[in-house]
Amino acid sequence: MSEINRQWCLARRPVGTIDTKDLEWREEPLSALGQGDVRVRHIYLSLDPTNRIWMSDMDQYMPPVDIGEVMRGGTLGVVEESLDPSLSPGDIVTGLGGWQDYFTGPAKYLSKTTPPAGVPLPALMSVLGLTGLTAYFGLLDIGRPKQGETVVVSAAAGAVGSIAGQIAKIKGCRVVGIAGSDEKCRWITDDLGFDGAINYRTENIQDRLSTLCPDGIDVDFENVGGEILDTVLTQINLNARIVICGLISGYNATEPVPGPYHFVNILMKRAIVQGFIILDFASRFPEGVAALAQWLAEGRLKYEVDVVAGLENAPTAISRLFTGGNTGKLLVQVSPEPQ
Amino acid sequence: MSEINRQWCLARRPVGTIDTKDLEWREEPLSALGQGDVRVRHIYLSLDPTNRIWMSDMDQYMPPVDIGEVMRGGTLGVVEESLDPSLSPGDIVTGLGGWQDYFTGPAKYLSKTTPPAGVPLPALMSVLGLTGLTAYFGLLDIGRPKQGETVVVSAAAGAVGSIAGQIAKIKGCRVVGIAGSDEKCRWITDDLGFDGAINYRTENIQDRLSTLCPDGIDVDFENVGGEILDTVLTQINLNARIVICGLISGYNATEPVPGPYHFVNILMKRAIVQGFIILDFASRFPEGVAALAQWLAEGRLKYEVDVVAGLENAPTAISRLFTGGNTGKLLVQVSPEPQ
Repeated sequence: MSEINRQWCLARRPVGTIDTKDLEWREEPLSALGQGDVRVRHIYLSLDPTNRIWMSDMDQYMPPVDIGEVMRGGTLGVVEESLDPSLSPGDIVTGLGGWQDYFTGPAKYLSKTTPPAGVPLPALMSVLGLTGLTAYFGLLDIGRPKQGETVVVSAAAGAVGSIAGQIAKIKGCRVVGIAGSDEKCRWITDDLGFDGAINYRTENIQDRLSTLCPDGIDVDFENVGGEILDTVLTQINLNARIVICGLISGYNATEPVPGPYHFVNILMKRAIVQGFIILDFASRFPEGVAALAQWLAEGRLKYEVDVVAGLENAPTAISRLFTGGNTGKLLVQVSPEPQ
Repeated sequence: MSEINRQWCLARRPVGTIDTKDLEWREEPLSALGQGDVRVRHIYLSLDPTNRIWMSDMDQYMPPVDIGEVMRGGTLGVVEESLDPSLSPGDIVTGLGGWQDYFTGPAKYLSKTTPPAGVPLPALMSVLGLTGLTAYFGLLDIGRPKQGETVVVSAAAGAVGSIAGQIAKIKGCRVVGIAGSDEKCRWITDDLGFDGAINYRTENIQDRLSTLCPDGIDVDFENVGGEILDTVLTQINLNARIVICGLISGYNATEPVPGPYHFVNILMKRAIVQGFIILDFASRFPEGVAALAQWLAEGRLKYEVDVVAGLENAPTAISRLFTGGNTGKLLVQVSPEPQ
């Protein structure tokens, strides 16, 4: 075990896109374990659009990360030392361990997890982790798609969108994804079974939605906001459900971002726009994981992880979430998996 | 009975605020009754913000009024002739009879109505009519206020807002209204029992909402949109419900209107924004009327009507809805009530 804990700390709040100077690299000696503490060696660090929110001081759903604090991040790791009877060395745990080699702290902040047979660890940080659960509860509980309805998913090649769209297919919907490259569009249609895809960088979203959603849009699983949401709102059906999972197009904004210009269609179409945060569903995670694991085992659900090697590369890697540089779940490999 | 039917027809679609030239005055001979037809002499014509929507060709919840067509409007009248067994001369009926002295057409388009004892006819066009029902179902079914929660109502001295706020009081909520004059603010607090009022023309909405809603906002009954909704969104609580009843601030717009700049708070606060149109609740109107009539009889619900004399004045009167010139329900007296 190393005696050093490498960390990325928040040096200042980003203005616009994340600058690598917004984070500061530190190498600290490992702190001692207190009563009930464990030491976890991180294997994977999750990079998510919401990290950008935590770096800011905007109104948000958790306290912002303080300046000087280790950057918050979802982690999967292996217990190396434990002063708590609930965890033992070798246990695999997930939590918000932060952008660092080691988490040292109370065991109660961690969840022990056992990968189903044949399921690799990165699946626990993607399809069977928070992003898969976000897709599951967001689509099914908030979107409530019915068989035969049309579901549109933005950021459809992302960690959440790619799973949400596949679940909508499992539920018998027509599914159209919006993504940022022809390659991503091919992936979601050819590999994941979406009925159609729109490359928002090269195609006219309005025209393509009309073509691909001839019966209008019943559910919008929204990860992006901005022009994409605005265009979707022009084609929603009566009683449409707009699931606000993310609004990534605005997270880097330095000026106030207007809401959708077609907001009035929420009234005209008696639509429901509902925001949700996956942590609110924590008590139902076992239900979600069970369903996702079953579909995965049946081959009905595919997922992709995009693994960047080395904690030192986290600040540059996270920018890819905002430029469309990743497909599927973006992870950082902090240390090797246990043998 | 007159042989002439005076009408206001839509001459052109308004650009911005309604211009009296957007409507054309016609005097037509009364048309003959066909099989199943009735002739109704209009007593009251309802003027509503949604009339402005019908005049436009924006995406909307009913077909726009065609150019040259009699302007659509809610009416209460008395049957003078009937070729349908369901209606007899002397019956009081409501419907979308239009901006004209007489409606001549199928009885099936009309609802026979009997005012409860001691209730004047204008109550059927306000507190016990569509605006009262809009308040009832919008607040209770969409807003779902719980005892002790804080409810904000915009256009709070209007026909819908004034009733919605009182229902929220009946349900044990703290109620804050937003209106456009000190006189309206006094009316909703001193006469209607709202806990607080904000004059949006003279007061800082943000500061006053903070003061008057110390526990945040749980339900927003939104009739206005624009800056008012935007400011409310900054102070909503977790799982707030935003009832989109109307967005009158945008109906006269000649440029695209941005949605709320604090749209992202829908996500952060896991809020629900839901549009509704009262006509969707038609099957439940008897339930709503019964509850409203009961509260009215118990003196727990007050209402005001603002009656403009003469069909010829309808085009000028309707502008008052957009300038804040009315308190309570705005009606046009088309002809005298039956003795």
